[in-house]
Amino acid sequence: MRLATLDDGTRDGALVVVSKTGDVYAHAREIAPTLQAALDAWDRDETALRELATRLDKGEAPCHPLAQARFKAPLPRAYEWIDGSAYINHILLVRKARGADLPQTLESDPLVYQGGSSVLLGPTDDIELPNPEWGLDFESELCVVLGDTPRGVQKADAARYVRLFMLANDLTFRNLIPSELQKGFGFFNSKPSTSFSPFAITADEFGTAFLDGRVHLRLRSTYNGQLVGDPEAGPEMHFSFFELVAHITKSRGFCAGTLLGSGTVSNRDQARGVSCLAERRMIETLESGKPKTPWMKAGDTIEIEMLDESGRSLFGRISQKVVAV
Amino acid sequence: MRLATLDDGTRDGALVVVSKTGDVYAHAREIAPTLQAALDAWDRDETALRELATRLDKGEAPCHPLAQARFKAPLPRAYEWIDGSAYINHILLVRKARGADLPQTLESDPLVYQGGSSVLLGPTDDIELPNPEWGLDFESELCVVLGDTPRGVQKADAARYVRLFMLANDLTFRNLIPSELQKGFGFFNSKPSTSFSPFAITADEFGTAFLDGRVHLRLRSTYNGQLVGDPEAGPEMHFSFFELVAHITKSRGFCAGTLLGSGTVSNRDQARGVSCLAERRMIETLESGKPKTPWMKAGDTIEIEMLDESGRSLFGRISQKVVAV
Repeated sequence: MRLATLDDGTRDGALVVVSKTGDVYAHAREIAPTLQAALDAWDRDETALRELATRLDKGEAPCHPLAQARFKAPLPRAYEWIDGSAYINHILLVRKARGADLPQTLESDPLVYQGGSSVLLGPTDDIELPNPEWGLDFESELCVVLGDTPRGVQKADAARYVRLFMLANDLTFRNLIPSELQKGFGFFNSKPSTSFSPFAITADEFGTAFLDGRVHLRLRSTYNGQLVGDPEAGPEMHFSFFELVAHITKSRGFCAGTLLGSGTVSNRDQARGVSCLAERRMIETLESGKPKTPWMKAGDTIEIEMLDESGRSLFGRISQKVVAV
Repeated sequence: MRLATLDDGTRDGALVVVSKTGDVYAHAREIAPTLQAALDAWDRDETALRELATRLDKGEAPCHPLAQARFKAPLPRAYEWIDGSAYINHILLVRKARGADLPQTLESDPLVYQGGSSVLLGPTDDIELPNPEWGLDFESELCVVLGDTPRGVQKADAARYVRLFMLANDLTFRNLIPSELQKGFGFFNSKPSTSFSPFAITADEFGTAFLDGRVHLRLRSTYNGQLVGDPEAGPEMHFSFFELVAHITKSRGFCAGTLLGSGTVSNRDQARGVSCLAERRMIETLESGKPKTPWMKAGDTIEIEMLDESGRSLFGRISQKVVAV
């Protein structure tokens, strides 16, 4: 099942179900007005939403063309956004890039940061750039939407709390990071609002590609019209989503609609490219002594997408433009 | 005006208006079902809520005794919880306690961390202690509730975005902090759910005590029945709430209902006591070489309250007990 949030002018948008083909959607307002409402009552609403999806795919539900719709983030505001950094290759490259030490517990203790979640960008919203000196970068990621999740979840039980999957563009102002992390309290100004894919999908949409808490498909990033990365999201995700859930629930619980990200998808094989500019700049520095690729600037575009084995765009496409403000 | 959220069994509770005397409340459901709904439409709802408060104080609105009510946090789940650390004396003491360096920009660049906000504790909810070795501590704070707040707010304009004030108990597992901060991504497991006062109040409730973005009253913390601190919240708040708003809006905006905390209230004058155990333990260490006060344990109680100049409890009382789980 694929869900999305139509931009109807309200804060939280309107919940719709998207067809398997991706060309039409059906209003789900009689089941739940918003995705948050559906997540709040998932045990009740999931079956009805799946029935609507089935009717839509059979051509038995009133439907509307997707091409004319404008989507918000599936959750335009969320009660929590937690981002992991589960791809070790990404950590190695970006820490090297800023001359930062590696955590001693790199491979045993997941890195996560608490992100802001009161304003989340839709898949085609502009990326505002107040100051090009801040070093704007995209970061292409997967994330999960959790249901109500108690404290103390074990990895083996984590699957039951994962409701939906989305793609995220975890935008970052790279040049604001060093002074911010030096203060010891984590990211804040260095992380503007994050963007999300149009569709939030259930695990069954992956077929056999979702295994052991990892999505075994490639994540495609297209920067200014050029494919810059299509790394495999599965094998090198050192901590699976299930391990990330176990980590974050060590000392507290979370309410339905909590977002949990994978961190920037990254492969050791350089032929797979990059999911952010920081990695590319570090590779350039290792090769030639200094970075060649500049940070993002006004007019730049970034598209993020994941295709399944049949070539279908699972989440729809994040497609954003940078604008000076 | 004082607002509160009645625990009616729903996730978000029911909005009520509390009388000046603090002994009765009136349902506000005909104006807005929840505090979040009121904040979402504040321009429309504020006047109606204030009129209801006036009728309640005149004895002209249907009212219910407060003593029999159970309150949730004013926002039982919020879209964002950002906590500052605006009292320099607190930073000096706790960093000394864990042998951590002081940020070079201590007095020019505010410290804030992004907290979790999908599960917030009510004023009388138990504090769960999964492991006494984690070093549970309370932290008594003030916080503000923001309205819709754009990017780039200047200090001089910040007042217009501050809707309400609350007290917070920013619970912390002190012994989880060092390894977590060593990883460089800020607090996560070291911060369980935060607790909030029963009432969220408008600035006019302070009379003349709210000045330049600071609350000039004492914040009382009573630990196991003993008053352990009543520091002045005003003069030593190095960064005012207005400066904190300017800081957090540098690179993004926030939606209505975003919570912004002051950090642990702390005075240089030791006669004013402490608003957390970490400070007391550091003072003991300076005096006698080692801390005497243990961290919180099952059965401990903590009460946090602020009285106005007439002795009225402005926010109601946070009154929590620690329970082993």
